[in-house]
Parts: sequence; structure tokens; C-alpha cells
Amino acid sequence: MEIEEKRRVIKVQCYTLKDTINFYMRPIEGLTVLLDLDTQQVIEIIDEGKNIPIPNAANTDYRFSRIKKNTQKINLLKPISIEQPNGPSFTIENNHLVKWANWEFHLKPDPRAGVIISRAMVQDPDTGKMRNVMYKGFTSELFVPYMDPSDAWYFKTYMDAGEYGFGLQAMPLDPLNDCPRNAYYMDGVFVAADGTPYVRSNMICVFERYAGDIGWRHAECPITGLPIREVRPKVTLVVRMAASVANYDYIVDWEFQNDGLIRPKVGLSGILMVKGSPYVNMNQVNQNEYLYGTLLSENIIGVIHDHYVTFHLDMDIDGPSNNSFVKVNLQKEMTSFGESPRRSYLKAVRNVAKTEKDAQIKLKLYDPSEFHVINSNKKSRVGNPVGYKVVPGGTAASLLDHDDPPQKRAAFTNNQIWVTPYNESEQWAAGLFVYQSQGDDTLAVWSDRDRAIENKDIVLWYTLGFHHIPCQEDFPIMPTVSSSFEIKPVNFFESNPILNIPPNSPKDLPICKAAASA
Amino acid sequence: MEIEEKRRVIKVQCYTLKDTINFYMRPIEGLTVLLDLDTQQVIEIIDEGKNIPIPNAANTDYRFSRIKKNTQKINLLKPISIEQPNGPSFTIENNHLVKWANWEFHLKPDPRAGVIISRAMVQDPDTGKMRNVMYKGFTSELFVPYMDPSDAWYFKTYMDAGEYGFGLQAMPLDPLNDCPRNAYYMDGVFVAADGTPYVRSNMICVFERYAGDIGWRHAECPITGLPIREVRPKVTLVVRMAASVANYDYIVDWEFQNDGLIRPKVGLSGILMVKGSPYVNMNQVNQNEYLYGTLLSENIIGVIHDHYVTFHLDMDIDGPSNNSFVKVNLQKEMTSFGESPRRSYLKAVRNVAKTEKDAQIKLKLYDPSEFHVINSNKKSRVGNPVGYKVVPGGTAASLLDHDDPPQKRAAFTNNQIWVTPYNESEQWAAGLFVYQSQGDDTLAVWSDRDRAIENKDIVLWYTLGFHHIPCQEDFPIMPTVSSSFEIKPVNFFESNPILNIPPNSPKDLPICKAAASA
Repeated sequence: MEIEEKRRVIKVQCYTLKDTINFYMRPIEGLTVLLDLDTQQVIEIIDEGKNIPIPNAANTDYRFSRIKKNTQKINLLKPISIEQPNGPSFTIENNHLVKWANWEFHLKPDPRAGVIISRAMVQDPDTGKMRNVMYKGFTSELFVPYMDPSDAWYFKTYMDAGEYGFGLQAMPLDPLNDCPRNAYYMDGVFVAADGTPYVRSNMICVFERYAGDIGWRHAECPITGLPIREVRPKVTLVVRMAASVANYDYIVDWEFQNDGLIRPKVGLSGILMVKGSPYVNMNQVNQNEYLYGTLLSENIIGVIHDHYVTFHLDMDIDGPSNNSFVKVNLQKEMTSFGESPRRSYLKAVRNVAKTEKDAQIKLKLYDPSEFHVINSNKKSRVGNPVGYKVVPGGTAASLLDHDDPPQKRAAFTNNQIWVTPYNESEQWAAGLFVYQSQGDDTLAVWSDRDRAIENKDIVLWYTLGFHHIPCQEDFPIMPTVSSSFEIKPVNFFESNPILNIPPNSPKDLPICKAAASA
Repeated sequence: MEIEEKRRVIKVQCYTLKDTINFYMRPIEGLTVLLDLDTQQVIEIIDEGKNIPIPNAANTDYRFSRIKKNTQKINLLKPISIEQPNGPSFTIENNHLVKWANWEFHLKPDPRAGVIISRAMVQDPDTGKMRNVMYKGFTSELFVPYMDPSDAWYFKTYMDAGEYGFGLQAMPLDPLNDCPRNAYYMDGVFVAADGTPYVRSNMICVFERYAGDIGWRHAECPITGLPIREVRPKVTLVVRMAASVANYDYIVDWEFQNDGLIRPKVGLSGILMVKGSPYVNMNQVNQNEYLYGTLLSENIIGVIHDHYVTFHLDMDIDGPSNNSFVKVNLQKEMTSFGESPRRSYLKAVRNVAKTEKDAQIKLKLYDPSEFHVINSNKKSRVGNPVGYKVVPGGTAASLLDHDDPPQKRAAFTNNQIWVTPYNESEQWAAGLFVYQSQGDDTLAVWSDRDRAIENKDIVLWYTLGFHHIPCQEDFPIMPTVSSSFEIKPVNFFESNPILNIPPNSPKDLPICKAAASA
């Protein structure tokens, strides 16, 4: 597309706000305006959708004030709340240093990354000392390619952090709905395009979560004669932001457990990006015609797309240096004749990654591994390397062709895990400048240099992925879909670090009255 | 092993209770007694571990009454609780029919399966009618192979439901620790080996969960000029049991969401099965020697093992008949020359499974699919088939050789998903009789008959898997590790079924005082 090159251009999409606030469900399909941002000149108006009606506004509003009038049946639930009559157990010093249970970390709103966790340290239960775990962790980039190659859609391959600013798009959180009671809210201070500073209030919340879950437990069965039933409730600390990147809402959580585990989690809600269609029923569609998505309602197609969220995890296991990445591969081992009635077992084989290419990981169900970051200079009491492992979750891989322009720009999604040596300039997986980038400054390019990563200050990159084939339940607004992965101690502590948390007893529980009866 | 065949035999493992209640950490390694259960005769005493010391009792006790004396540092948390001043929103009729929000289902304690959910129905928000989703769902079998082929270990390949009884091993739940306040407790009534009935009190709990999470949300960014921030809290219903199969504790949850989603979840806690070792430090181990696990503490090896939990899900989407299994495969499609600036996109290709072999599914990250169960006779308003999908999670695949005797017996783990036509006799994935079975009555055998499954009453089987390489943090008792999958509506409802749940406001929150100050 020659007219688009070497200019700062943007493609304007058109919707109508008539009769609904949910204009995303009323696309003026095929109408795209190419605009030069420097000259403010309209370069081109493309209208490919003249025969496609604008979908009806009916049933698109989702505001509570409007929806009450509808006939949808529901049994209302009685009030339920996470209550802490003595207040939360965390403190936040100087509006950035969070201390909770055995954790300490810095928390910072960032215009591009959203939330940055830094200097995360956990207390050693034996010595009482704070130990380094992660120097810095944040969502480095997102990639959201839509799966429709037609004129009005092919370019919809968003990189929400580098293009829009994941933090800039984080709107104020709604107390009691976005975050429970006793949450602490932190403002972001950002700079507008004209250089004016502004405050984004309530951009991040911090709260403790008790979800009725179990930290650890064991009961003995009667045959042992031991009257043992020891159970500990699980309480965690959550840092949250919610970025509304136009239609989509990304809920980003960093959850800390007192057993040393960190769980980054991404929830997707908000509104689909849909396509206008002449069809009102699938029975009108020729068997050979492909719609690029699901007919969600009359004249509305939810186009198939992926979401990738790439995390930058600058691990500092017991300090910045001497960290190494170890692949602990589980391999099928056959027994030799006569060795055992068993023919096979799984054997753990450790491989320390020497260079970056050793750490370009595609996850394989039938060739599984654990992925450890260890401090090569430190052993536990019985001689194991101390470390943390990344436990994958929410895996979806980008299947786009590696030579496809959007995939070149998003080549950081070519693997699920990468490890690079720390380099101050390598923070943003799609490169520092993302708009109209060609993919020459991505994580994939850096990693292909194949630098040494053993016994270094290293950065681990993990990508959460989602394939999204829309369904009717996503219309007109989507129930949250979540995925998470874990950063988890592995021979980091000498033993279970939460042996001495006390069980709950009735005397710990608050005494609560209904608010209405107060 | 000739002396073991055609007899009812058991292998007795030996531990010492001296100086600790956590005898699992004091194995008398290599001492195995083969016992004839009918004659009560000792057939053989094998002692292969004469040079292996019994590990020390130090640091093995995990009881709160003992641990307090230890020096482990901890910052105690203030009380935190899920509070419902007006009580819970579910009802349980006749001690088995659970009604909550838009759900109704039957709940039954079962000696073998543990918890059985049956006749799960969800209300249609448009018509108010209850619609069938699942006729019956339960944990059909477990498979826990240890990865050590030596004499004292090769046979440790447990099937906890068929061998021990997942329900029989479910011990009474600990109120306020296993389940939060306002939980309902259900007893199990079982039969002892001598025919005597007995009551297992508090075997199952039912409770509502509010974890600070978000059901759906959207905020508009300022440029639209729309002052919109609509957020709904997520409240769910959980059914839980905790089975202590000797050392291990399995926490089984069935979580119901009012958006129609069902999330079966398995948590692992309890105590490792460990192996005695002559070593006290890894520096004593010859580089060529393989330990079959991790040295967790002096003389204690946590042996590598897997856990597989296979769920029987008798889906009845809008009724028992006319259900079909559809694989919606996402395939990379290359564009033709000149078609688009894009070279590739993902295309959804639907394939209805005709027979069982079409539905023997190994999950593939780079060949992804959605897995739907649809009612082939029913379409939504715009013509989509109504259905539910199974969303995999917690995937680990058994890598053991298919001809290995334990894997033959557990051939139901050869795939992650299977679909069979409903057959009353096919409830237990390892076969009705599991002890000393040879694998001739497993799900794999049934499925290989390759019966028709289109437009039938069908059963979907899903296996959650865990590879477990133990680490020091698992000693002397393990922090819970959890995994789950989802059973989720896909074009089952005409639109988002929870549009009209109200947001929280301060007037909904209880007023709570600390118990101590009451």
C-alpha cells in the first residue's frame, strides 16, 4: 500500500451512536477513512460495504439503568462481601512500597505497561531476611490479530501497549465492583499528548482476597488411629488494573501468595469488535461461504481473533547476577529387559540453557518440561539449586505465517517462553516504536543474536494466549474470560514456608449485620 | 510375578510413627510385605533397603499445636471472611436438590466417585424455563503412577476411585478452613466392609464464593464522551469435597457461574509419598546416578509422579438425545496472491464426529480446536446450533508406554478427551473392577469399538493431568496445587445471560465488627 508508507497515517472506522450507547454493535461496515495525522488530510475514503445494513440497536445497551426494563429473568443474590473488620493486613509506604505477609514490592502505574511490579522480595521463614525474587515484572506488549483478510479488516492486528498505552487506557476502577471492600486505590499521573500532566484517579487497586480456598491440608483416615485434620485457609494479595482499549476491557491481576507464588492473570471482558453482515440467519448463508466468525445477532458477526499478552519478568533469584535458565525435561525412559515389571517411567533431565536459542521454548504436551530460573551460586541445605519456575497456563500459540507482516511485527509471540540477558533497552517486546513498525526491533530479533544467558542477570518472557471464536453469549457484552500462569518457588525455601499460619476459628470471624437493618 | 497372580494380594509398605505423626516422612525403605487378603498369610517379605537409614523425624510435624514452637517467621494476617449477613442465596431441598441463581442440580455423595452432580439445569433468561445441560458429572477414575521402576516402587500406580473409593476416603470437612462461613454441610451414608452402614459427617460442603472478581465490565474512554462504567461482581456457587487417599489430599470443587459456566477443579495437597535414601546432600550423589526424584531433606527423596483425574460428563444439551460432538478446528489459511496485504489468517472449520474414534482427542497447541457438544435438533434465533464446549485446562499427558502394564490398565489417559455413546455399564473409566485388572474393560477399550456418536445421548470424558516433580516446598506437607477446566455455554443462550445482575453499592455491604470486640 504505497500511499500508506513513510507517512503517519491512521485508518478511521465508522460506527453510529444512534439509539444505543453500544456503538460497537452498530458498525458502518466497510467504511474506512485513511487519514494523514500530520497534515490532517483525508487520503482516501473506502466504502466496500454499501449492501450491508447497519445492525439494529435493539438489545445492545448493557447499562443497569436500561436493562432493568427488559424481561430477562434472574434470581437476585443476597449481599456477599469479603469483610475485614480490623482492616487489611497490607501497608503501602510512600504510595509505592507494598508490604504484605512475607512479601515486599514496589508498585508503579506506567502509561505503556499499566502496572509495574518491581523489587519483589519474599521473607525467608528460617532467617527472617528478605530475599530477591523479581527485579521487575510487567505486561510488555499485547498482540490482537483479527482473522479476516478483507479490505476493511486485514489491518486489525493491534498492539495495545505500544500503540495505545495499556496504562493510558486504564480507566478509574469502580469501588465494590472492580475491587472488593477494603481495597486501596492508587492514582496514575500521566502526560497528555500536549504535554499537560493529568491524574488518572483510582487506576490501580490493591486488596486481600479470601475465596474460600485452602492453603494446605491433610486429614488422616481412621485406620491410622491419628486424629489429624489440619487445614489452613488461603489468603492472597491482589494488585489490579482494568484497561479499556476501546471496545475490549483487560483486567490485569498480580496475585501474591504467602507460599511464595506469584500469579499474573489476565481477564478479558468488554465488547467485541464486530462486522456488519447482510445475513440475519445462518440459513441464508451458502455452504461454501465463510463468514470469518460467528453470526451473533441479526447482521452482526463476531470476527475470530487472538489475544497475546507478553510479560517481561526480570527475575533476580537471590540477586541480579548468577541466574540461569534450566529446562527440566520429563522424558520417557524404557526399562531394560528383566529390570522391572514396568516397561517405562518418566525421567527428569536437567539442561542449563547456555545461550538465548536454548531458551526459545514452544510448549509441548507430549514433551513436557519445567522451566526454572535458578541462582547458580546458591544451593539449599541438601544441595539443590535455589530457584523459581514459570508454570505455563492459558496457552494458545500464534499460528499465523511467520512471514505475514503482522506476525513479523509480533514475532515475540513465535515462542511461549524466551530468556534474554538483561539489557536496559530491551523492555518492549514489539520494539520501542510500534506504530507502522516492520518487526526489526522485536524480542525475536534480540533473541536471535543468541547471546550467552548462563550465570547472568536474565529476563524471562512469557506469553499468555487466547483464541477467541465469539459466541452469542458475548453479545452485547462479554462475561469475563480469564487465564493465568504462575511464578513459583522451587527449592527456594528449605521447606513449606507457610507451616505456621494459624487455622481459622469462630473467634476470628467478624460479627456482621445487614446494612439495611443498621 | 507368578506368586501374585490369581490371588487377592496386597503389598504392605512400612513406616515408623516414632517421634512424629507424619510417618509418611519416615519410610522403612525397601521393606515390602506381600500379603494374601483371603488367607491373611504373609507370602513374602522383601527387604531391599538395609543400607538406607530411616529419615529423621525432625521438622516433619505440621500440626499447629507443635509448629508454634518453631522459629519460622511470619506476619500474621488480620481476620478476613466471606460474609453474608442475610445468609446464603442457595437452597437445598430434601438434602439433595440444590437451587441457586439460575441453576438447579442434584447432589449426591458416592462411595466411589465422591461427589455426583446430576440433572444440572440452567434457566433460560428469555423464557424462564429450566434447560438441561448435564445429566451426570463425576470423577470417574484417578491414575497416579510413580516414576521409579525399582522393586519397592514399580507397582505404585494407584487408581484411587476404583481401588480405595474417592468418596470413602473423603473425611469430614473442617468448617471455616475447608469451607467458608455460611457453607452447607452434607453427610455421606456408606457401607463398611462388613455391611454395616455408617455416616460420614460433613463430607460435602456447598457455599457461595465472592473472590473480588468481575463478572463483566466495560468503561468507555474519555474520547467517546460517554460516561460509561458498568461493572458487575462475580459470585459463584461451589460444591466441595476433600478426599484423603492415604498421604495425598484431593480437593474436588464443582463451581457454577450464573453465566452458565461449570468449572470442575482439583486441588492437590497433603503429604508426598517419599523414598528413603542414604544421601543427606546432593554433593554425595555420583553424576551418573539418578534418584527418581528430588532430595527434599536429609535421606528423603520425593519421587516424581503424575496425577490424572478423569471426569465422566454425561452431557444432555437441551435433552438426552440428538447430542453431537463437534470439533471446531482453527486452521492456518494462506491468502492467495493479491487477495490481501495479509498472508494468513485462522479459519474455523467444523467437523461433527461420526464415531468414537473421531472423538479420541490429543490436545495440540499448534493444532487447536474448540470442543462442542451441541443439540443437533436445535438452533438459536439466528441459526447457530445450541451447545456447550469443554475448555481444557490443567493439561498433562501420560507419556508411559502404551504396553506398560499400568498404562494398559489406565488406558483411559491415552487421550485427553473421549466421547462415547451413553451406556449404563460404562461409568468407571478403568472398568468396574480395578484391583489387579489387566486393562480389558477401560474407556479405551469401549471407545475402540468405534460406535456411532452422532445425534445420540453421548458422554464426554475429560482428563485433568499433573506432572509432579517434588520440591523442598512440598516438605513436610504441600501447599495446594490446583487445576481446572470449564464446561461453558456456546450459542446456548441468545445473548449474555447475566445482563441484568445488579452492581454492588455501599448499601449492599454488611456492617461488621471484629469478633473479639463483640
